[in-house]
Amino acid sequence: MGPLTPVGMDDCRVPLVNEPLNADQAERLAPSFKALGDPIRLRLLSLIASHQGGEACVCDLTDGFDVSAPTISHHLKVLREIGLVSSERRGTWVYYRAEQSALDLLSTVLSVPQGVNA
Amino acid sequence: MGPLTPVGMDDCRVPLVNEPLNADQAERLAPSFKALGDPIRLRLLSLIASHQGGEACVCDLTDGFDVSAPTISHHLKVLREIGLVSSERRGTWVYYRAEQSALDLLSTVLSVPQGVNA
Repeated sequence: MGPLTPVGMDDCRVPLVNEPLNADQAERLAPSFKALGDPIRLRLLSLIASHQGGEACVCDLTDGFDVSAPTISHHLKVLREIGLVSSERRGTWVYYRAEQSALDLLSTVLSVPQGVNA
Repeated sequence: MGPLTPVGMDDCRVPLVNEPLNADQAERLAPSFKALGDPIRLRLLSLIASHQGGEACVCDLTDGFDVSAPTISHHLKVLREIGLVSSERRGTWVYYRAEQSALDLLSTVLSVPQGVNA
């Protein structure tokens, strides 16, 4: 089974090279791209998404960044609120998981099907 | 032949679910996502990319927007400077073309290959 579409985005899973986005679709998609428009958040998302088992403990995410722990927490909150990651507390630690359905939707919007306007 | 990778981005064409982005890759990718993080720019890009022949006259792009022509021009400039569209003046009008290679690269970065951390 393929990834589910994030809630409220069902009608957005269309390559933008196929048909123009309407104003409403663009309003719903833009905040996700904006959330990806920060290098720290991109790195955090890639660390989480590529981590073994598809999830990463927050304790795995602070090394290698030249920013403070509160800054990391802020960026994780932005990713969570927009639905690009989910989080779960288990014992001492919070674990983050990439929402593959959200990634897949954004990837589809930007995809260039072969033969389109080539 | 598939799309060429935008200049200086050759090493970024990897799904972020496959391996973590390094700081340098994230710094180069983030501005493109940031440029997509605005609903007017998303709509303009989709209008251009989906237009017949893969290009659109600036005269095709001003209808349907509730913003001024200078605002449209500003957003087109942002898209052009980041390399998501190119432009060419022919006679009276400027024509915009979506850079499919840039779209394809960003789509690949967000893509979720089947079986990854599923």
